Amino acid sequence: MAIVLGRNQYGKAECRVVRVYRDGDRHEIRDLNVSTSLRGDFTAAHVGGDQADVLPTDTQKNTAFAFAKSKGVGAIEEYAQALAEHFVDRVPKVTGARVEVEEYAWRRIDVDGRGHDHAFVRSGEAVRNTVVNVEGTTADRRTWVVSGVSDLVIAKTTGSEFKGFLQDEYTTLAETDDRVLATSLVARWRYADTNVDWDATHAAVVRDLLAVFAERHSRALQQSLYDMGEAVLERHPEIAEIRFSAPNKHHFLVDLAPFGQENPGEVFIAADRPYGLIEATVLRDDAPAPGSAWHSTPGFC
Amino acid sequence: MAIVLGRNQYGKAECRVVRVYRDGDRHEIRDLNVSTSLRGDFTAAHVGGDQADVLPTDTQKNTAFAFAKSKGVGAIEEYAQALAEHFVDRVPKVTGARVEVEEYAWRRIDVDGRGHDHAFVRSGEAVRNTVVNVEGTTADRRTWVVSGVSDLVIAKTTGSEFKGFLQDEYTTLAETDDRVLATSLVARWRYADTNVDWDATHAAVVRDLLAVFAERHSRALQQSLYDMGEAVLERHPEIAEIRFSAPNKHHFLVDLAPFGQENPGEVFIAADRPYGLIEATVLRDDAPAPGSAWHSTPGFC
Amino acid sequence: MAIVLGRNQYGKAECRVVRVYRDGDRHEIRDLNVSTSLRGDFTAAHVGGDQADVLPTDTQKNTAFAFAKSKGVGAIEEYAQALAEHFVDRVPKVTGARVEVEEYAWRRIDVDGRGHDHAFVRSGEAVRNTVVNVEGTTADRRTWVVSGVSDLVIAKTTGSEFKGFLQDEYTTLAETDDRVLATSLVARWRYADTNVDWDATHAAVVRDLLAVFAERHSRALQQSLYDMGEAVLERHPEIAEIRFSAPNKHHFLVDLAPFGQENPGEVFIAADRPYGLIEATVLRDDAPAPGSAWHSTPGFC
Amino acid sequence: MAIVLGRNQYGKAECRVVRVYRDGDRHEIRDLNVSTSLRGDFTAAHVGGDQADVLPTDTQKNTAFAFAKSKGVGAIEEYAQALAEHFVDRVPKVTGARVEVEEYAWRRIDVDGRGHDHAFVRSGEAVRNTVVNVEGTTADRRTWVVSGVSDLVIAKTTGSEFKGFLQDEYTTLAETDDRVLATSLVARWRYADTNVDWDATHAAVVRDLLAVFAERHSRALQQSLYDMGEAVLERHPEIAEIRFSAPNKHHFLVDLAPFGQENPGEVFIAADRPYGLIEATVLRDDAPAPGSAWHSTPGFC
Repeated sequence: MAIVLGRNQYGKAECRVVRVYRDGDRHEIRDLNVSTSLRGDFTAAHVGGDQADVLPTDTQKNTAFAFAKSKGVGAIEEYAQALAEHFVDRVPKVTGARVEVEEYAWRRIDVDGRGHDHAFVRSGEAVRNTVVNVEGTTADRRTWVVSGVSDLVIAKTTGSEFKGFLQDEYTTLAETDDRVLATSLVARWRYADTNVDWDATHAAVVRDLLAVFAERHSRALQQSLYDMGEAVLERHPEIAEIRFSAPNKHHFLVDLAPFGQENPGEVFIAADRPYGLIEATVLRDDAPAPGSAWHSTPGFC
Repeated sequence: MAIVLGRNQYGKAECRVVRVYRDGDRHEIRDLNVSTSLRGDFTAAHVGGDQADVLPTDTQKNTAFAFAKSKGVGAIEEYAQALAEHFVDRVPKVTGARVEVEEYAWRRIDVDGRGHDHAFVRSGEAVRNTVVNVEGTTADRRTWVVSGVSDLVIAKTTGSEFKGFLQDEYTTLAETDDRVLATSLVARWRYADTNVDWDATHAAVVRDLLAVFAERHSRALQQSLYDMGEAVLERHPEIAEIRFSAPNKHHFLVDLAPFGQENPGEVFIAADRPYGLIEATVLRDDAPAPGSAWHSTPGFC
Repeated sequence: MAIVLGRNQYGKAECRVVRVYRDGDRHEIRDLNVSTSLRGDFTAAHVGGDQADVLPTDTQKNTAFAFAKSKGVGAIEEYAQALAEHFVDRVPKVTGARVEVEEYAWRRIDVDGRGHDHAFVRSGEAVRNTVVNVEGTTADRRTWVVSGVSDLVIAKTTGSEFKGFLQDEYTTLAETDDRVLATSLVARWRYADTNVDWDATHAAVVRDLLAVFAERHSRALQQSLYDMGEAVLERHPEIAEIRFSAPNKHHFLVDLAPFGQENPGEVFIAADRPYGLIEATVLRDDAPAPGSAWHSTPGFC
Repeated sequence: MAIVLGRNQYGKAECRVVRVYRDGDRHEIRDLNVSTSLRGDFTAAHVGGDQADVLPTDTQKNTAFAFAKSKGVGAIEEYAQALAEHFVDRVPKVTGARVEVEEYAWRRIDVDGRGHDHAFVRSGEAVRNTVVNVEGTTADRRTWVVSGVSDLVIAKTTGSEFKGFLQDEYTTLAETDDRVLATSLVARWRYADTNVDWDATHAAVVRDLLAVFAERHSRALQQSLYDMGEAVLERHPEIAEIRFSAPNKHHFLVDLAPFGQENPGEVFIAADRPYGLIEATVLRDDAPAPGSAWHSTPGFC
């Protein structure tokens, strides 16, 4: 028996890269949170501590900032891909790179009905993200792009039931025909290839997710998620698979009877913990194998 | 010498009250975080532990939920005032009540260009709040309403300088003619009376704050805050005073010279800590004394 | 009527100063979070934006780090006082300075029964802090030191009742003779002067707070806090006043009857929100007036 | 092509179970955060929304609390295993269950040199946890136990270098012979079987991790982690594998030269973001395959 090094990777997490475009009077702002990690044979760095093959995480950070200038920040999927390819191509021992980017949206401040040229307010409605994994050299390049959205807090105040469920000796929950359904949705979808209009597709997917959540009657959060995923796959042939992690943010009907009041679905207490947690994948049965697409993505691997 | 009880209050913090209006097909949702606290002579409860005069915090919570039904949730200022008056009027030893309400905004999910009837997405752009203090019985009622906004993250990518400042032996900061100015603004304004169109005024104040931030050249965050406060007071005679707490969220220009790149205000690193913290008050010189308006409001008293 | 600048201050918040003493093989580590703020007549900086009198927050930060070297970090009360006096004495327009320091405790890693010379593990049990306010020049110096503790999470599993409280039409809470009482205590105490053995006194106060919480039967959290404060004042003549902010972290008895189980105080659910919030002051009736001791200390002013 | 349901699971997250043992005057307290999730064929619940096979997350929560009474809370590994087996054995469609438990440590309050019978203070030093996965019925039971520790914040003020690393055109980091090395360690180790003295082993592993971190010279965080893992495996034949996720919490030496001061490793600024992130596995080359041991464990799968 011997003790050996197993799976490993290292990188720089949460570089807060802010890129301003100021080519004319009308500025643009891109606000990113960039995390990179590299994998390959780094046995020597672990066993004995020889760092000769290690590109420091500080250098990875520098590269993320330098690329924001030299490559620019268009769609985060392109920026992430450029960074990941750089590490795989240029760092000798690196066989795979993972780059995750979150993007915080800003909108122009409205002044007299017009968006201001260089003043912005941050929109807190959901965070766009992407995870790009690249392996292999140019001759044998494999690229996986998984994009997504987090912090998309949604609720419907009717059109949601929960009944007919399994009962056992620990069941106390009452069935209901009408409840508040709410979640802080995290969705990530895997693209089948990289020939995609990233910005337009991302916006369309979010729009589709919201519309299906709104329009379809919900028998349970599981069903809502499946319906949402199915709709995305039907409308977007470039997407192979979509995964959800959705807390069921419980809104409990408050018992107002002790105070002589009825409460026909009007007053709720929003609870923090515990919460239900529903995780589900919807995919095409002929989707290509995921390969390294979901490599070390917390909650989705 | 004797040891005595000094200033004290007690209450229930962070009741997550969600009120749904479902009078027709088109629902409304109001999402609140309600904190109440009561003051008066509660010596017996502290010294010796006699609870005969104590309305439990659990009962305060119940009242907050019951009022969401019986009084409804219109403007949060009205809801808070009704709650505070109830406690002062109905609980024997209570001489003052403070009710703080935060409101989280939701917008309708857009489906085919129309906002959905009962499905919503939470807007993360700023939180509206109010603190209402009520003292005295009906005959001698004193009411203070302080409303505000938090988490209003704003930035301008030019039109901001910082120079001509005091230098000493610990100075290393360079002067700059052009920088990114960003803050997560917390503003609270005290109304001169309670005869106010709460919703319209709140929206107008936020709009004014944003517009002045956008339009005025900034020589420092202090000056921007003052200008913003001055504009609010000029346009809103019903407001006596406005106070700000504004972290200077530093965006440092990244030195790209080692990589052969220029960086004329294009690539920044957004820093977490430390941050500047600017606190300022702008008021009318004939404003009525604040009385208990700012009673135990963290960061503003 | 004119619009004018009111109360204001500015500074650098949350400088994470880590000071290592390495005079011999046996190192010491001091881990601080330092916030400074300055007050005085800064009208010109706000009205018009002239920064000539403004010592930038960046310089304040530099000073905090430089003093960690030149003055060293003994008791945080001394370090804070030195910083505050520097700003008042050396910055022309500054009439008052407030320095807040939090200190995170570390203990030596135990190796074969002995604390290691230079390896440490951070103790997460409570955070020590101090707020020092200094006003006036050497000839007319006024200094206030308020020290405290936060994140001191304590619980007692019996010896706590809550009954005999006021009842109204919104009361549903049952009385109890025996409950779990828990809080995450925040306590701050004001010293009567500055001739104090800071480290020994701080340790003794925390010890006294814990012991009284443990030993005295509790009729309510209010009473426990008062007893704790009274004991501190009785034992520490150098302390003029102590203030508490204590969330009542509710532990609700779980109803196990539906599962055929009794629950005589054995299984609880710990709730997050809402929580009770008890704020109380205990002081000597001949305590000197607090002056600026509590200046802008969130939750305690 | 068809759209189908892929991998999925559902459960209740973060049940805050507090168990008090009060069989005599000397109470014990166990403070847990319990998350359960079930997997199996739940297609009907997703596709069409039929809940007949779904044991609601509310019932899972009830079960967690009921088991805290009926089975008691000994080692969290045993409690988690009992819960997981219950779900697999008793819920028809469930083929696998995952139960994660975090435990927060409390120590007795010291009164006159003796730990109090029923008053406690929460120790914030690290969180113990376990993830137990169970699959199959009694006849074909497979059980995986992975235990760990999080929030173990450790630092060494010398005995750490970082040099000899790979350089490229984006390198600016200087080599160093002596730095502060700090991390907030997350470690999880997989047991080879379930015949383990859980409490004793957990304590021993944490002790070993700390001792090796302290004693071994570090050439990089990677090497420290490997050494720590190797030591654990050498001393604990019942452990098959250990995995680490360790942020490199940077402590940057502050440049005090502008103030005429030297800084020989004495004053540091602790940075928040970005941070290095090192992930590594150390295992026996004859370790049994991990199977479902790491199923959906964020950061470790």
